[in-house]
Amino acid sequence: MQPPQPLRGIIPPLVTPLRDRDTLDTAGLERLVEHLISGGVSGLFILGTTGEGPSLSYRLRRELVQLACKFANNRVPVLTGITDTSFTESVNLARHAADCGATHVVTSAPYYFPAAPPEMLEYVQDLVAEMPLPLFLYNMPGLTKVSFELDLVRRALDMPGICGVKDSSCDMIYFHRLIEVARQRADWSVLVGPEELTAEAVLLGGHGGINGGANLHPRLYVDMYHAAAAQDLQRTRELHAQVMSLAGAIYTVGRHKSAIIKGIKCALSLTGVCEDHMAEPFHRFREPERALMRERLKAIGLLA
Amino acid sequence: MQPPQPLRGIIPPLVTPLRDRDTLDTAGLERLVEHLISGGVSGLFILGTTGEGPSLSYRLRRELVQLACKFANNRVPVLTGITDTSFTESVNLARHAADCGATHVVTSAPYYFPAAPPEMLEYVQDLVAEMPLPLFLYNMPGLTKVSFELDLVRRALDMPGICGVKDSSCDMIYFHRLIEVARQRADWSVLVGPEELTAEAVLLGGHGGINGGANLHPRLYVDMYHAAAAQDLQRTRELHAQVMSLAGAIYTVGRHKSAIIKGIKCALSLTGVCEDHMAEPFHRFREPERALMRERLKAIGLLA
Amino acid sequence: MQPPQPLRGIIPPLVTPLRDRDTLDTAGLERLVEHLISGGVSGLFILGTTGEGPSLSYRLRRELVQLACKFANNRVPVLTGITDTSFTESVNLARHAADCGATHVVTSAPYYFPAAPPEMLEYVQDLVAEMPLPLFLYNMPGLTKVSFELDLVRRALDMPGICGVKDSSCDMIYFHRLIEVARQRADWSVLVGPEELTAEAVLLGGHGGINGGANLHPRLYVDMYHAAAAQDLQRTRELHAQVMSLAGAIYTVGRHKSAIIKGIKCALSLTGVCEDHMAEPFHRFREPERALMRERLKAIGLLA
Amino acid sequence: MQPPQPLRGIIPPLVTPLRDRDTLDTAGLERLVEHLISGGVSGLFILGTTGEGPSLSYRLRRELVQLACKFANNRVPVLTGITDTSFTESVNLARHAADCGATHVVTSAPYYFPAAPPEMLEYVQDLVAEMPLPLFLYNMPGLTKVSFELDLVRRALDMPGICGVKDSSCDMIYFHRLIEVARQRADWSVLVGPEELTAEAVLLGGHGGINGGANLHPRLYVDMYHAAAAQDLQRTRELHAQVMSLAGAIYTVGRHKSAIIKGIKCALSLTGVCEDHMAEPFHRFREPERALMRERLKAIGLLA
Repeated sequence: MQPPQPLRGIIPPLVTPLRDRDTLDTAGLERLVEHLISGGVSGLFILGTTGEGPSLSYRLRRELVQLACKFANNRVPVLTGITDTSFTESVNLARHAADCGATHVVTSAPYYFPAAPPEMLEYVQDLVAEMPLPLFLYNMPGLTKVSFELDLVRRALDMPGICGVKDSSCDMIYFHRLIEVARQRADWSVLVGPEELTAEAVLLGGHGGINGGANLHPRLYVDMYHAAAAQDLQRTRELHAQVMSLAGAIYTVGRHKSAIIKGIKCALSLTGVCEDHMAEPFHRFREPERALMRERLKAIGLLA
Repeated sequence: MQPPQPLRGIIPPLVTPLRDRDTLDTAGLERLVEHLISGGVSGLFILGTTGEGPSLSYRLRRELVQLACKFANNRVPVLTGITDTSFTESVNLARHAADCGATHVVTSAPYYFPAAPPEMLEYVQDLVAEMPLPLFLYNMPGLTKVSFELDLVRRALDMPGICGVKDSSCDMIYFHRLIEVARQRADWSVLVGPEELTAEAVLLGGHGGINGGANLHPRLYVDMYHAAAAQDLQRTRELHAQVMSLAGAIYTVGRHKSAIIKGIKCALSLTGVCEDHMAEPFHRFREPERALMRERLKAIGLLA
Repeated sequence: MQPPQPLRGIIPPLVTPLRDRDTLDTAGLERLVEHLISGGVSGLFILGTTGEGPSLSYRLRRELVQLACKFANNRVPVLTGITDTSFTESVNLARHAADCGATHVVTSAPYYFPAAPPEMLEYVQDLVAEMPLPLFLYNMPGLTKVSFELDLVRRALDMPGICGVKDSSCDMIYFHRLIEVARQRADWSVLVGPEELTAEAVLLGGHGGINGGANLHPRLYVDMYHAAAAQDLQRTRELHAQVMSLAGAIYTVGRHKSAIIKGIKCALSLTGVCEDHMAEPFHRFREPERALMRERLKAIGLLA
Repeated sequence: MQPPQPLRGIIPPLVTPLRDRDTLDTAGLERLVEHLISGGVSGLFILGTTGEGPSLSYRLRRELVQLACKFANNRVPVLTGITDTSFTESVNLARHAADCGATHVVTSAPYYFPAAPPEMLEYVQDLVAEMPLPLFLYNMPGLTKVSFELDLVRRALDMPGICGVKDSSCDMIYFHRLIEVARQRADWSVLVGPEELTAEAVLLGGHGGINGGANLHPRLYVDMYHAAAAQDLQRTRELHAQVMSLAGAIYTVGRHKSAIIKGIKCALSLTGVCEDHMAEPFHRFREPERALMRERLKAIGLLA
């Protein structure tokens, strides 16, 4: 297998458009994929945190992988989240993803019973041995309770099946150390999760962002990435300020942590891209959150 | 459906005997079930934390439910863990459990993306509506990041499908408040997780324990429960001291949090009950941990 | 110096009666001391968490030590909190306490920059060498971020200057291990902080409680201690239920963590014992919290 | 009082040179001040976290303030940390600082009993009313458990006595929001704590850094600041890489969190600036840490 080129740029973590608890909004998914590819993104990441991956049935996950690959139609890489507490299910889903034409798989730490650093190293070694596609490590300690420590990442340099790290820790000191480590692997990508941090991540050597807000306004994020990658600091600052505004508007409609995902889905629903049903334990925004979101989208120019 | 009598006593959280990552040690499971029932336990709890529930494939979970019910053969209630990040998979497993003859289901909070208290209330309402069996709430915030707050438990008093709470928070103030709340539902059971806390839990009004160490020495835990339930304080203190010794011996062989589950499985392997293979991300103890466990089991009289 | 007998029973952590930010309510302090001694307590603990010790000026702390000892007048032991981030200030206050006639000093971990376990061991060794009075270790990781780990406590068995542990971790597994360790030092006391846990602590071998609510109703806590120490389980349960009611009534008037201290002070003000001014960063309850407290005190019979 | 110009640039948090637990290394302090001023720093911050402020006796703190101001001799502003759990002691120290000629005071949250957001707002209002000098808010939730939330900072815009924020949360999303808020106060400074984050903080609108490593090599940090403020991205990246190397070399000699402060002091001792005695609960590095530090300083060119 010929590994794809190292990923650079914006790779949105797609929301999963749902019609109900266990039914894909297929037409919405197709519109979302078109919306993103036409917005200039460098890839699609499905079944991540924003995609409510762990909340979906396995049947629906498999359907989603199949359809996302079909709709992407080889125009951009498709990264599939396989994070699971069950090793066997991670492997099963990775194989399905490879069969469907996905290009990469992405795993965070098993997120129920926390593994200690030496156990995590064994886990990554065990997992990479079974992977049919290049594997991204997805550092998300706020949700998994477990980090991919720098020592583990250094050991991963010797694992050809690993192709990079996505860091959603919000810890930019860690991120800068990741970049130092990754310099030894030209085929690696080091990507950042929170969109508020993509500008500085790229200005200081990172390779791009897996940013939730790019679901809504991919072009803004892609432009910010290009400005930062081109070292155009003035332009980067302007676009970063716009990203901060968008995030501040969209993510603060609800009061709970789920407000980020609910906010993106609600906004995509209001802008006609896809439905905003949420899988349990969450429910979509009711009125008046929806009304407030409408106002905010108008205020930032995303709704007429 | 006729609800079973409220549960009282010791209900061990069974380890899942494995031959490899995705293969049950069926003979070991049968021996374990006999070992426990002959030890006087009041029920069997499968697919909990000690049972590595979230680490197992769904195929294996279903096989385990089927076999545990078969081996129990209606002699004691069988409680099945259905904790999942996917609502649909929780419901699927609960239905399978009912089909197999399990008597109760048990759920903790969805453990990836944390739900806020009002979201958790909706989640419990949604879930209980789909349950074919009485549902226990399993409070395990150390692993799920989310508690079943007392306000939610008070609301659950009005849900006939709920039959009690298992608390593994290690917070005995919370536990005493649970007992106060549960007095309004004679059909509820309030059970405690950590075995070091079962004595005081029962002395002060709790109904029993779901204690990992009971896998190894069920009679000790059952005797302690009966002494405490009979308000025989002197005997309770003696047996509590023995439980403290056993836990101190078995759970401190390894250095990581996984040492508890690894320790129970290793001890069961050394005493001939079942194999001690662990599902990823963990591996069974190697030598010299196994040698150390052998010594410790001899020291506390569980190995000749 | 002849060490006092090992402490047993209820030793309330006195609130510090204040007239304003830096002025003692001296008459209130005298009434409080009489109220507690006449309620049967086994000692007085000043300058603890409930006493807002770290919030007071050093001048006021010294005045409080002097007056509390004067008012106690050798009728009961006086324990003085010397917890500080500055070693020198801890030593200075301990010497002052000895000069005033206090019988013990109490220290938690330095609570700004967290020390690691080997550093904490050195700290305790350094500190005990300078102490003019027997020293209690006060385990309060929720506020100090640092525990006195069991290994450290085992090492402290060899330090004659240490006389016991007060545990406010709310972790009863830790507490039971403390009791095991302390059996080797007949002169030690192992006391529990949260009043909701005193019953089980004493039933299973602990020596008493340093319970905030005893400021308000010392007799209730003293009676509960005696019932538990006498192994009268039925009476212990009744009194434990009363303690739970009192705590539930008094500590839930405010919404923040400070509600516990504010609640005790407000209740003492309403019952005529002392003023309820709080040192910053806190302020006493305003109306309507004060009105609600009045109602609750009536409901539990502490106000006519 | 004429407020000083808004602070811009690098303001090192000075270590406190000690000869023993309660004795300043006066000559070392004078050398340190000269070393920093000749290195181009924009101010001196004493009695912060790196300065072991909370570990020092009040007598020594007052002596340090007096001498630091004397040695600075009005060449640069002197910021004095007054963070305390006692409001009265904070005020006392602030007045002393003003008397000695300090230009600003700096406070973090009271760090023993955590205040809730509305309580923190009242605290800041109370404190600023008593301050004889402009006050910086110092956000350090990792040590104080309490953040200065953005809502509080927005309210602080209306308090003329407040002159900015130092953020050591490591949360760059929060930092970017701070910058947005602070735009409304031209006299404010928004400064970042961790030196690994100063480059991006300044590139995206921050005003400088309070960086521990600047004690050792002030010129490097000052140059990095100027490059970033001048939007010279290439030079900023080079200097940021050097800062990362220095931090990676100096801060990882010990295994505990204290390794950062111990490391800076040890390096200053080896380079002849000042003694490296630490106040309890810490002790300076022993051999072999000191030997390892010597090697590392040679490797990065700070020791011949």
